Amino acid sequence: MREALRVEPGTLLADIDPRSTPAFDGDKELAAEIMAGVDEELADLQERLYADGRDGDGRSVLLVIQGMDTSGKGGIIRHVIGAVDPQGVELTAFKAPTAAEKRKPFLWRIRQALPKPGYIGVFDRSQYEDVLIVRVHNLVPPSTWSRRYGQINTFEKSVQSKGTTLIKVMLRISSEEQKARLQERLDRPDKHWKYNPGDVDERELWPAYEEAYQAVVDKTSTDDAPWYVVPADRKWYARLAVQQLLLETLRDLDPQWPSATYDVDVEKERLAAT
Amino acid sequence: MREALRVEPGTLLADIDPRSTPAFDGDKELAAEIMAGVDEELADLQERLYADGRDGDGRSVLLVIQGMDTSGKGGIIRHVIGAVDPQGVELTAFKAPTAAEKRKPFLWRIRQALPKPGYIGVFDRSQYEDVLIVRVHNLVPPSTWSRRYGQINTFEKSVQSKGTTLIKVMLRISSEEQKARLQERLDRPDKHWKYNPGDVDERELWPAYEEAYQAVVDKTSTDDAPWYVVPADRKWYARLAVQQLLLETLRDLDPQWPSATYDVDVEKERLAAT
Repeated sequence: MREALRVEPGTLLADIDPRSTPAFDGDKELAAEIMAGVDEELADLQERLYADGRDGDGRSVLLVIQGMDTSGKGGIIRHVIGAVDPQGVELTAFKAPTAAEKRKPFLWRIRQALPKPGYIGVFDRSQYEDVLIVRVHNLVPPSTWSRRYGQINTFEKSVQSKGTTLIKVMLRISSEEQKARLQERLDRPDKHWKYNPGDVDERELWPAYEEAYQAVVDKTSTDDAPWYVVPADRKWYARLAVQQLLLETLRDLDPQWPSATYDVDVEKERLAAT
Repeated sequence: MREALRVEPGTLLADIDPRSTPAFDGDKELAAEIMAGVDEELADLQERLYADGRDGDGRSVLLVIQGMDTSGKGGIIRHVIGAVDPQGVELTAFKAPTAAEKRKPFLWRIRQALPKPGYIGVFDRSQYEDVLIVRVHNLVPPSTWSRRYGQINTFEKSVQSKGTTLIKVMLRISSEEQKARLQERLDRPDKHWKYNPGDVDERELWPAYEEAYQAVVDKTSTDDAPWYVVPADRKWYARLAVQQLLLETLRDLDPQWPSATYDVDVEKERLAAT
Protein backbone atom coordinates (compact mmCIF):
# COMPACT_ATOMS: atom_id res chain seq x y z
CA MET A 1 0.00 0.00 0.00
CA ARG A 2 2.84 2.36 0.82
CA GLU A 3 4.29 2.23 -2.67
CA ALA A 4 0.95 2.94 -4.30
CA LEU A 5 0.17 5.94 -2.11
CA ARG A 6 3.58 7.53 -1.54
CA VAL A 7 4.02 10.97 -3.04
CA GLU A 8 6.76 11.13 -5.67
CA PRO A 9 8.56 14.28 -6.80
CA GLY A 10 6.22 16.14 -9.11
CA THR A 11 3.03 14.46 -7.86
CA LEU A 12 0.05 16.70 -8.55
CA LEU A 13 -2.84 16.28 -6.15
CA ALA A 14 -5.21 17.29 -8.94
CA ASP A 15 -4.21 14.09 -10.76
CA ILE A 16 -5.33 11.86 -7.87
CA ASP A 17 -8.94 10.79 -8.20
CA PRO A 18 -10.63 10.91 -4.77
CA ARG A 19 -12.87 8.00 -5.76
CA SER A 20 -10.01 5.74 -6.81
CA THR A 21 -8.81 2.79 -4.74
CA PRO A 22 -5.07 2.37 -5.45
CA ALA A 23 -3.60 -1.11 -4.92
CA PHE A 24 -7.03 -2.56 -4.20
CA ASP A 25 -9.62 -3.81 -6.64
CA GLY A 26 -12.13 -5.32 -4.22
CA ASP A 27 -15.31 -3.84 -2.80
CA LYS A 28 -16.45 -2.59 0.58
CA GLU A 29 -17.18 -6.07 1.92
CA LEU A 30 -13.77 -7.42 0.96
CA ALA A 31 -12.09 -4.38 2.51
CA ALA A 32 -13.91 -5.01 5.80
CA GLU A 33 -12.93 -8.67 5.66
CA ILE A 34 -9.28 -7.85 5.10
CA MET A 35 -9.32 -5.32 7.94
CA ALA A 36 -10.87 -7.79 10.39
CA GLY A 37 -8.43 -10.46 9.25
CA VAL A 38 -5.35 -8.53 10.34
CA ASP A 39 -6.71 -7.15 13.61
CA GLU A 40 -4.93 -9.87 15.53
CA GLU A 41 -1.59 -9.31 13.81
CA LEU A 42 -1.91 -5.58 14.40
CA ALA A 43 -2.69 -6.15 18.09
CA ASP A 44 0.31 -8.46 18.41
CA LEU A 45 2.68 -6.00 16.73
CA GLN A 46 1.37 -3.14 18.86
CA GLU A 47 1.88 -5.11 22.07
CA ARG A 48 5.44 -6.02 21.04
CA LEU A 49 6.18 -2.37 20.29
CA TYR A 50 4.79 -1.42 23.70
CA ALA A 51 6.71 -4.14 25.53
CA ASP A 52 9.90 -3.17 23.75
CA GLY A 53 9.40 0.45 24.83
CA ARG A 54 9.00 -0.31 28.51
CA ASP A 55 12.65 0.36 29.28
CA GLY A 56 12.16 3.92 28.07
CA ASP A 57 14.32 3.86 24.97
CA GLY A 58 12.29 1.87 22.47
CA ARG A 59 10.84 3.02 19.22
CA SER A 60 7.47 4.59 18.52
CA VAL A 61 5.18 5.37 15.62
CA LEU A 62 3.44 8.64 14.83
CA LEU A 63 0.45 8.63 12.50
CA VAL A 64 -0.30 12.14 11.27
CA ILE A 65 -3.74 12.59 9.70
CA GLN A 66 -4.53 15.67 7.65
CA GLY A 67 -7.48 16.38 5.40
CA MET A 68 -10.26 18.83 4.65
CA ASP A 69 -13.35 19.02 6.88
CA THR A 70 -15.49 15.87 6.51
CA SER A 71 -12.63 13.94 4.91
CA GLY A 72 -13.11 11.17 7.46
CA LYS A 73 -10.34 11.71 10.01
CA GLY A 74 -12.62 10.80 12.90
CA GLY A 75 -13.94 7.65 11.26
CA ILE A 76 -10.41 6.45 10.57
CA ILE A 77 -9.42 6.98 14.18
CA ARG A 78 -12.55 5.19 15.38
CA HIS A 79 -12.18 2.22 13.05
CA VAL A 80 -8.43 1.79 12.61
CA ILE A 81 -7.02 3.08 15.88
CA GLY A 82 -10.09 1.85 17.77
CA ALA A 83 -9.02 -1.71 16.95
CA VAL A 84 -5.71 -1.24 18.78
CA ASP A 85 -5.30 -1.53 22.57
CA PRO A 86 -6.05 1.98 23.91
CA GLN A 87 -3.28 1.51 26.48
CA GLY A 88 -0.68 1.72 23.71
CA VAL A 89 -2.13 4.74 21.90
CA GLU A 90 -1.61 8.46 22.49
CA LEU A 91 -4.18 10.44 20.56
CA THR A 92 -4.05 14.22 20.17
CA ALA A 93 -6.61 16.33 18.33
CA PHE A 94 -5.14 19.71 17.54
CA LYS A 95 -7.71 22.51 17.63
CA ALA A 96 -7.10 26.21 17.03
CA PRO A 97 -4.17 27.09 19.32
CA THR A 98 -5.01 28.63 22.70
CA ALA A 99 -3.74 32.06 23.68
CA ALA A 100 -0.94 30.40 25.67
CA GLU A 101 0.03 28.17 22.73
CA LYS A 102 0.09 31.15 20.38
CA ARG A 103 2.81 32.75 22.49
CA LYS A 104 5.08 29.73 21.91
CA PRO A 105 6.80 28.64 18.69
CA PHE A 106 4.27 26.74 16.54
CA LEU A 107 6.06 23.42 17.05
CA TRP A 108 5.96 23.70 20.84
CA ARG A 109 2.60 22.03 21.35
CA ILE A 110 3.52 19.39 18.78
CA ARG A 111 6.64 18.43 20.75
CA GLN A 112 4.55 18.05 23.92
CA ALA A 113 2.36 15.51 22.14
CA LEU A 114 5.06 13.29 20.60
CA PRO A 115 4.54 9.62 21.49
CA LYS A 116 6.57 8.07 24.29
CA PRO A 117 8.73 5.02 23.48
CA GLY A 118 6.52 2.01 22.73
CA TYR A 119 3.46 4.04 21.83
CA ILE A 120 1.53 4.69 18.65
CA GLY A 121 0.89 8.42 18.58
CA VAL A 122 -1.98 9.71 16.47
CA PHE A 123 -2.31 13.35 15.43
CA ASP A 124 -5.75 14.45 14.29
CA ARG A 125 -4.50 17.57 12.48
CA SER A 126 -0.93 18.56 13.28
CA GLN A 127 1.94 20.95 12.64
CA TYR A 128 0.63 21.17 9.08
CA GLU A 129 -2.29 23.35 10.15
CA ASP A 130 0.36 26.04 10.52
CA VAL A 131 0.93 26.03 6.77
CA LEU A 132 -2.68 25.23 5.78
CA ILE A 133 -5.41 27.19 7.58
CA VAL A 134 -2.77 29.69 8.73
CA ARG A 135 -1.61 30.26 5.14
CA VAL A 136 -5.10 30.37 3.63
CA HIS A 137 -6.33 32.87 6.20
CA ASN A 138 -3.12 34.92 6.39
CA LEU A 139 -2.97 34.39 10.15
CA VAL A 140 0.75 35.16 10.04
CA PRO A 141 2.76 37.07 7.40
CA PRO A 142 3.86 35.08 4.30
CA SER A 143 7.49 35.43 5.37
CA THR A 144 6.61 33.50 8.53
CA TRP A 145 4.59 30.63 7.08
CA SER A 146 6.95 30.23 4.16
CA ARG A 147 9.80 29.46 6.57
CA ARG A 148 7.76 26.79 8.31
CA TYR A 149 8.11 24.12 5.63
CA GLY A 150 11.84 23.93 6.26
CA GLN A 151 11.30 24.10 10.02
CA ILE A 152 8.88 21.20 9.82
CA ASN A 153 11.34 19.14 7.77
CA THR A 154 14.11 19.76 10.28
CA PHE A 155 11.79 18.94 13.14
CA GLU A 156 10.59 15.70 11.56
CA LYS A 157 14.14 14.61 10.80
CA SER A 158 15.00 15.08 14.45
CA VAL A 159 11.90 13.18 15.56
CA GLN A 160 12.76 10.25 13.29
CA SER A 161 16.38 10.21 14.44
CA LYS A 162 15.14 9.68 18.00
CA GLY A 163 13.32 6.49 16.98
CA THR A 164 9.85 7.65 15.96
CA THR A 165 8.61 6.48 12.58
CA LEU A 166 6.28 8.97 10.95
CA ILE A 167 3.33 7.99 8.78
CA LYS A 168 1.92 11.13 7.20
CA VAL A 169 -1.52 10.62 5.71
CA MET A 170 -3.30 13.20 3.58
CA LEU A 171 -6.95 12.35 2.97
CA ARG A 172 -8.22 13.53 -0.37
CA ILE A 173 -11.92 14.11 -0.94
CA SER A 174 -13.71 15.80 -3.80
CA SER A 175 -15.65 19.00 -3.42
CA GLU A 176 -18.87 17.16 -4.37
CA GLU A 177 -18.33 14.50 -1.71
CA GLN A 178 -17.73 17.17 0.92
CA LYS A 179 -20.96 18.85 -0.10
CA ALA A 180 -22.86 15.58 0.29
CA ARG A 181 -21.34 14.96 3.71
CA LEU A 182 -22.15 18.45 4.96
CA GLN A 183 -25.67 18.04 3.57
CA GLU A 184 -26.05 14.85 5.61
CA ARG A 185 -25.00 16.70 8.76
CA LEU A 186 -27.71 19.27 8.12
CA ASP A 187 -30.34 16.67 7.25
CA ARG A 188 -29.89 14.48 10.33
CA PRO A 189 -30.66 15.95 13.78
CA ASP A 190 -28.20 13.48 15.35
CA LYS A 191 -25.48 15.05 13.18
CA HIS A 192 -26.34 18.71 13.68
CA TRP A 193 -23.68 19.04 16.38
CA LYS A 194 -20.99 18.10 13.86
CA TYR A 195 -21.88 20.99 11.58
CA ASN A 196 -20.55 24.49 11.97
CA PRO A 197 -21.55 27.48 9.81
CA GLY A 198 -17.82 28.12 9.38
CA ASP A 199 -17.65 24.89 7.35
CA VAL A 200 -19.30 26.62 4.40
CA ASP A 201 -16.97 29.62 4.72
CA GLU A 202 -13.99 27.26 4.56
CA ARG A 203 -15.54 25.44 1.64
CA GLU A 204 -15.59 28.66 -0.34
CA LEU A 205 -11.81 28.77 0.06
CA TRP A 206 -11.41 25.34 -1.56
CA PRO A 207 -9.01 26.48 -4.33
CA ALA A 208 -6.75 28.21 -1.80
CA TYR A 209 -6.69 25.04 0.31
CA GLU A 210 -5.89 22.91 -2.73
CA GLU A 211 -2.93 25.18 -3.39
CA ALA A 212 -1.80 25.01 0.24
CA TYR A 213 -2.08 21.19 0.29
CA GLN A 214 -0.07 21.00 -2.94
CA ALA A 215 2.64 23.16 -1.36
CA VAL A 216 2.75 20.82 1.64
CA VAL A 217 3.29 17.85 -0.64
CA ASP A 218 5.88 19.68 -2.73
CA LYS A 219 7.91 20.93 0.20
CA THR A 220 7.58 18.39 3.00
CA SER A 221 7.48 14.97 1.39
CA THR A 222 10.98 13.78 2.24
CA ASP A 223 12.67 10.41 1.86
CA ASP A 224 12.49 9.90 5.60
CA ALA A 225 8.98 11.22 6.07
CA PRO A 226 7.03 10.99 2.82
CA TRP A 227 3.37 11.86 2.46
CA TYR A 228 0.84 9.19 1.60
CA VAL A 229 -2.15 10.61 -0.25
CA VAL A 230 -5.22 8.49 0.46
CA PRO A 231 -8.26 8.91 -1.81
CA ALA A 232 -11.09 9.29 0.66
CA ASP A 233 -14.38 9.68 -1.18
CA ARG A 234 -14.98 6.03 -0.28
CA LYS A 235 -14.68 5.85 3.48
CA TRP A 236 -14.15 2.09 3.50
CA TYR A 237 -11.13 2.42 1.22
CA ALA A 238 -9.52 5.19 3.27
CA ARG A 239 -9.86 3.09 6.42
CA LEU A 240 -8.37 0.04 4.77
CA ALA A 241 -5.52 2.08 3.32
CA VAL A 242 -4.57 3.70 6.64
CA GLN A 243 -4.76 0.37 8.44
CA GLN A 244 -2.43 -1.17 5.84
CA LEU A 245 0.01 1.75 6.10
CA LEU A 246 0.16 1.25 9.86
CA LEU A 247 0.48 -2.52 9.52
CA GLU A 248 3.27 -2.33 6.96
CA THR A 249 5.17 0.13 9.13
CA LEU A 250 4.90 -2.06 12.22
CA ARG A 251 5.92 -5.14 10.24
CA ASP A 252 9.06 -3.29 9.13
CA LEU A 253 9.87 -2.28 12.69
CA ASP A 254 9.44 -5.95 13.64
CA PRO A 255 9.51 -5.33 17.41
CA GLN A 256 10.65 -8.28 19.52
CA TRP A 257 9.59 -9.37 23.00
CA PRO A 258 12.23 -8.03 25.37
CA SER A 259 14.18 -10.66 27.24
CA ALA A 260 13.80 -10.97 31.00
CA THR A 261 15.87 -8.55 33.07
CA TYR A 262 15.77 -11.00 36.00
CA ASP A 263 16.66 -14.66 36.53
CA VAL A 264 13.55 -16.57 35.48
CA ASP A 265 14.43 -19.74 37.39
CA VAL A 266 15.15 -17.88 40.59
CA GLU A 267 11.81 -16.09 40.31
CA LYS A 268 9.97 -19.35 39.70
CA GLU A 269 11.39 -20.67 42.96
CA ARG A 270 10.53 -17.50 44.82
CA LEU A 271 6.97 -17.59 43.53
CA ALA A 272 6.56 -21.27 44.33
CA ALA A 273 7.57 -20.55 47.93
CA THR A 274 4.71 -18.08 48.44
CA MET B 1 -25.35 -5.33 37.79
CA ARG B 2 -24.84 -2.26 39.98
CA GLU B 3 -27.15 -3.53 42.68
CA ALA B 4 -25.46 -6.91 42.84
CA LEU B 5 -21.94 -5.47 43.12
CA ARG B 6 -22.43 -2.31 45.15
CA VAL B 7 -20.77 -2.33 48.56
CA GLU B 8 -23.23 -2.03 51.44
CA PRO B 9 -22.37 -0.85 54.96
CA GLY B 10 -20.66 -3.74 56.71
CA THR B 11 -19.61 -5.55 53.52
CA LEU B 12 -16.61 -7.76 54.23
CA LEU B 13 -14.36 -8.37 51.25
CA ALA B 14 -13.44 -11.74 52.74
CA ASP B 15 -17.05 -12.82 52.19
CA ILE B 16 -16.92 -12.16 48.45
CA ASP B 17 -15.84 -15.22 46.49
CA PRO B 18 -13.43 -14.15 43.69
CA ARG B 19 -14.71 -17.01 41.53
CA SER B 20 -18.36 -16.04 41.86
CA THR B 21 -20.35 -14.35 39.09
CA PRO B 22 -23.00 -12.16 40.77
CA ALA B 23 -26.14 -11.39 38.75
CA PHE B 24 -25.02 -13.71 35.95
CA ASP B 25 -25.49 -17.44 35.64
CA GLY B 26 -24.23 -17.95 32.10
CA ASP B 27 -20.82 -19.07 30.87
CA LYS B 28 -17.91 -17.44 29.08
CA GLU B 29 -19.52 -17.76 25.65
CA LEU B 30 -22.77 -16.16 26.75
CA ALA B 31 -20.84 -13.34 28.43
CA ALA B 32 -18.98 -12.62 25.21
CA GLU B 33 -22.24 -12.69 23.27
CA ILE B 34 -23.89 -10.23 25.64
CA MET B 35 -20.88 -7.93 25.48
CA ALA B 36 -20.83 -7.92 21.67
CA GLY B 37 -24.59 -7.39 21.64
CA VAL B 38 -24.45 -4.06 23.43
CA ASP B 39 -21.37 -2.64 21.71
CA GLU B 40 -23.56 -0.58 19.42
CA GLU B 41 -25.68 0.83 22.24
CA LEU B 42 -22.54 1.69 24.18
CA ALA B 43 -21.03 3.43 21.15
CA ASP B 44 -24.26 5.41 20.64
CA LEU B 45 -24.44 6.48 24.29
CA GLN B 46 -20.77 7.47 24.27
CA GLU B 47 -21.20 9.58 21.15
CA ARG B 48 -24.23 11.33 22.63
CA LEU B 49 -22.28 12.06 25.81
CA TYR B 50 -19.45 13.47 23.71
CA ALA B 51 -21.76 15.56 21.53
CA ASP B 52 -23.53 16.90 24.59
CA GLY B 53 -20.17 17.92 26.08
CA ARG B 54 -19.01 19.91 23.07
CA ASP B 55 -20.23 23.21 24.48
CA GLY B 56 -17.84 22.72 27.39
CA ASP B 57 -20.34 22.26 30.22
CA GLY B 58 -21.67 18.75 29.66
CA ARG B 59 -21.34 15.77 31.91
CA SER B 60 -18.61 13.15 32.03
CA VAL B 61 -17.96 9.71 33.47
CA LEU B 62 -14.93 8.55 35.41
CA LEU B 63 -14.22 4.84 35.69
CA VAL B 64 -11.73 4.14 38.47
CA ILE B 65 -10.15 0.68 38.38
CA GLN B 66 -8.29 -0.66 41.39
CA GLY B 67 -7.05 -4.15 42.08
CA MET B 68 -4.04 -6.24 43.06
CA ASP B 69 -1.31 -6.99 40.52
CA THR B 70 -2.57 -9.39 37.82
CA SER B 71 -6.21 -8.72 38.73
CA GLY B 72 -6.94 -7.91 35.10
CA LYS B 73 -7.03 -4.11 34.95
CA GLY B 74 -5.27 -4.05 31.59
CA GLY B 75 -7.52 -6.68 30.04
CA ILE B 76 -10.63 -4.79 31.10
CA ILE B 77 -9.32 -1.60 29.56
CA ARG B 78 -8.42 -3.43 26.35
CA HIS B 79 -11.73 -5.24 26.03
CA VAL B 80 -14.29 -2.88 27.55
CA ILE B 81 -12.80 0.54 26.88
CA GLY B 82 -11.23 -0.69 23.63
CA ALA B 83 -14.76 -1.11 22.25
CA VAL B 84 -15.50 2.60 22.72
CA ASP B 85 -14.41 5.33 20.29
CA PRO B 86 -10.90 6.33 21.44
CA GLN B 87 -11.73 9.96 20.62
CA GLY B 88 -14.12 10.07 23.56
CA VAL B 89 -11.85 8.40 26.11
CA GLU B 90 -9.17 9.87 28.38
CA LEU B 91 -7.10 7.09 29.88
CA THR B 92 -4.57 7.64 32.64
CA ALA B 93 -2.36 4.95 34.17
CA PHE B 94 -1.01 6.14 37.50
CA LYS B 95 2.49 4.87 38.24
CA ALA B 96 4.61 5.63 41.28
CA PRO B 97 4.57 9.42 41.58
CA THR B 98 7.51 11.32 40.10
CA ALA B 99 9.71 13.53 42.27
CA ALA B 100 7.77 16.57 41.02
CA GLU B 101 4.42 14.94 41.81
CA LYS B 102 5.61 14.01 45.29
CA ARG B 103 6.14 17.67 46.10
CA LYS B 104 2.44 18.38 45.42
CA PRO B 105 -0.61 17.31 47.45
CA PHE B 106 -1.47 13.70 46.55
CA LEU B 107 -4.68 14.70 44.77
CA TRP B 108 -2.89 17.18 42.49
CA ARG B 109 -2.05 14.73 39.71
CA ILE B 110 -5.53 13.22 40.00
CA ARG B 111 -7.15 16.62 39.36
CA GLN B 112 -5.00 17.10 36.25
CA ALA B 113 -6.37 13.86 34.84
CA LEU B 114 -10.10 14.40 35.44
CA PRO B 115 -12.14 13.91 32.26
CA LYS B 116 -13.27 16.95 30.29
CA PRO B 117 -17.01 17.42 29.66
CA GLY B 118 -18.30 14.74 27.28
CA TYR B 119 -15.47 12.30 27.96
CA ILE B 120 -15.23 8.92 29.61
CA GLY B 121 -12.18 9.11 31.85
CA VAL B 122 -10.49 5.87 32.89
CA PHE B 123 -8.07 5.63 35.81
CA ASP B 124 -5.83 2.58 35.87
CA ARG B 125 -4.99 2.89 39.57
CA SER B 126 -5.91 6.21 41.15
CA GLN B 127 -6.01 8.35 44.29
CA TYR B 128 -6.55 5.08 46.17
CA GLU B 129 -2.91 4.07 45.72
CA ASP B 130 -2.25 6.75 48.34
CA VAL B 131 -4.10 4.70 50.94
CA LEU B 132 -3.09 1.27 49.60
CA ILE B 133 0.58 0.82 48.65
CA VAL B 134 1.40 3.98 50.62
CA ARG B 135 -0.26 2.57 53.75
CA VAL B 136 1.13 -0.94 53.37
CA HIS B 137 4.68 0.32 52.89
CA ASN B 138 4.46 3.18 55.37
CA LEU B 139 5.52 5.66 52.71
CA VAL B 140 4.00 8.45 54.79
CA PRO B 141 3.21 8.53 58.53
CA PRO B 142 -0.09 6.93 59.65
CA SER B 143 -1.41 10.34 60.69
CA THR B 144 -1.06 11.42 57.04
CA TRP B 145 -2.62 8.45 55.26
CA SER B 146 -5.40 8.18 57.80
CA ARG B 147 -6.56 11.70 56.93
CA ARG B 148 -6.67 10.85 53.24
CA TYR B 149 -9.91 8.83 53.33
CA GLY B 150 -11.83 11.94 54.32
CA GLN B 151 -9.90 14.05 51.81
CA ILE B 152 -10.78 11.60 49.05
CA ASN B 153 -14.47 11.67 50.00
CA THR B 154 -14.53 15.46 49.94
CA PHE B 155 -12.69 15.48 46.63
CA GLU B 156 -15.04 12.96 45.01
CA LYS B 157 -18.09 14.84 46.24
CA SER B 158 -16.77 17.95 44.57
CA VAL B 159 -15.99 16.05 41.35
CA GLN B 160 -19.52 14.64 41.23
CA SER B 161 -21.08 18.02 41.92
CA LYS B 162 -19.36 19.36 38.81
CA GLY B 163 -21.09 16.76 36.63
CA THR B 164 -18.73 13.78 36.63
CA THR B 165 -20.28 10.43 37.51
CA LEU B 166 -17.82 8.14 39.26
CA ILE B 167 -17.79 4.37 38.80
CA LYS B 168 -15.35 2.90 41.30
CA VAL B 169 -14.43 -0.69 40.52
CA MET B 170 -12.44 -2.90 42.85
CA LEU B 171 -11.27 -6.12 41.21
CA ARG B 172 -11.07 -9.02 43.61
CA ILE B 173 -8.83 -11.99 42.85
CA SER B 174 -7.76 -14.86 45.05
CA SER B 175 -4.20 -15.42 46.12
CA GLU B 176 -4.17 -18.74 44.22
CA GLU B 177 -5.33 -17.10 41.01
CA GLN B 178 -2.66 -14.43 41.33
CA LYS B 179 -0.04 -17.14 41.78
CA ALA B 180 -1.22 -18.90 38.62
CA ARG B 181 -1.15 -15.65 36.63
CA LEU B 182 2.36 -14.76 37.81
CA GLN B 183 3.44 -18.32 37.02
CA GLU B 184 2.15 -17.86 33.47
CA ARG B 185 4.19 -14.68 33.09
CA LEU B 186 7.31 -16.60 34.09
CA ASP B 187 6.49 -19.58 31.87
CA ARG B 188 5.89 -17.63 28.67
CA PRO B 189 8.78 -15.64 27.12
CA ASP B 190 6.24 -13.28 25.49
CA LYS B 191 5.01 -12.44 29.00
CA HIS B 192 8.36 -12.04 30.73
CA TRP B 193 8.23 -8.26 30.32
CA LYS B 194 5.05 -8.15 32.39
CA TYR B 195 6.74 -9.75 35.38
CA ASN B 196 8.71 -7.85 37.96
CA PRO B 197 10.57 -9.42 40.90
CA GLY B 198 8.82 -6.87 43.09
CA ASP B 199 5.54 -8.68 42.34
CA VAL B 200 6.53 -11.51 44.69
CA ASP B 201 7.57 -9.04 47.40
CA GLU B 202 4.14 -7.41 47.15
CA ARG B 203 2.47 -10.80 47.19
CA GLU B 204 4.06 -11.53 50.55
CA LEU B 205 2.22 -8.50 51.89
CA TRP B 206 -1.16 -9.92 50.84
CA PRO B 207 -2.78 -9.75 54.31
CA ALA B 208 -1.73 -6.12 54.75
CA TYR B 209 -3.22 -5.29 51.34
CA GLU B 210 -6.45 -7.09 52.22
CA GLU B 211 -6.68 -4.94 55.31
CA ALA B 212 -5.97 -1.78 53.34
CA TYR B 213 -8.58 -2.65 50.69
CA GLN B 214 -11.13 -3.34 53.43
CA ALA B 215 -10.43 0.07 54.94
CA VAL B 216 -10.98 1.69 51.52
CA VAL B 217 -14.37 0.01 51.25
CA ASP B 218 -15.30 0.89 54.83
CA LYS B 219 -14.32 4.52 54.63
CA THR B 220 -14.85 5.65 51.02
CA SER B 221 -17.96 3.88 49.76
CA THR B 222 -20.41 6.76 49.87
CA ASP B 223 -23.97 7.10 48.57
CA ASP B 224 -22.74 9.34 45.79
CA ALA B 225 -19.64 7.33 44.93
CA PRO B 226 -20.05 3.73 46.05
CA TRP B 227 -17.53 0.97 45.36
CA TYR B 228 -18.44 -1.95 43.14
CA VAL B 229 -16.49 -5.06 44.06
CA VAL B 230 -16.06 -7.25 40.98
CA PRO B 231 -15.01 -10.87 41.47
CA ALA B 232 -12.15 -11.25 39.00
CA ASP B 233 -10.82 -14.79 39.08
CA ARG B 234 -12.80 -15.31 35.89
CA LYS B 235 -11.56 -12.67 33.51
CA TRP B 236 -14.59 -12.97 31.22
CA TYR B 237 -16.93 -12.20 34.11
CA ALA B 238 -14.98 -9.17 35.28
CA ARG B 239 -15.04 -7.73 31.76
CA LEU B 240 -18.77 -8.30 31.40
CA ALA B 241 -19.44 -6.78 34.83
CA VAL B 242 -17.44 -3.61 34.15
CA GLN B 243 -19.04 -3.20 30.74
CA GLN B 244 -22.49 -3.48 32.31
CA LEU B 245 -21.60 -0.99 35.07
CA LEU B 246 -20.54 1.50 32.41
CA LEU B 247 -23.60 0.80 30.28
CA GLU B 248 -26.05 1.18 33.17
CA THR B 249 -24.41 4.46 34.16
CA LEU B 250 -24.61 5.88 30.64
CA ARG B 251 -28.23 4.75 30.30
CA ASP B 252 -29.06 6.65 33.48
CA LEU B 253 -27.33 9.77 32.21
CA ASP B 254 -29.39 9.39 29.01
CA PRO B 255 -27.44 12.05 27.05
CA GLN B 256 -29.38 13.71 24.22
CA TRP B 257 -28.19 15.01 20.86
CA PRO B 258 -27.70 18.76 21.30
CA SER B 259 -29.95 20.92 19.15
CA ALA B 260 -28.44 23.05 16.41
CA THR B 261 -26.98 26.38 17.49
CA TYR B 262 -27.54 27.78 13.98
CA ASP B 263 -30.49 28.07 11.62
CA VAL B 264 -30.59 24.75 9.77
CA ASP B 265 -32.63 26.04 6.83
CA VAL B 266 -30.36 29.03 6.30
CA GLU B 267 -27.33 26.75 6.31
CA LYS B 268 -28.92 24.38 3.82
CA GLU B 269 -29.37 27.30 1.46
CA ARG B 270 -25.82 28.52 2.00
CA LEU B 271 -24.44 25.06 1.33
CA ALA B 272 -26.59 24.59 -1.78
CA ALA B 273 -25.16 27.83 -3.17
CA THR B 274 -21.56 26.55 -3.04
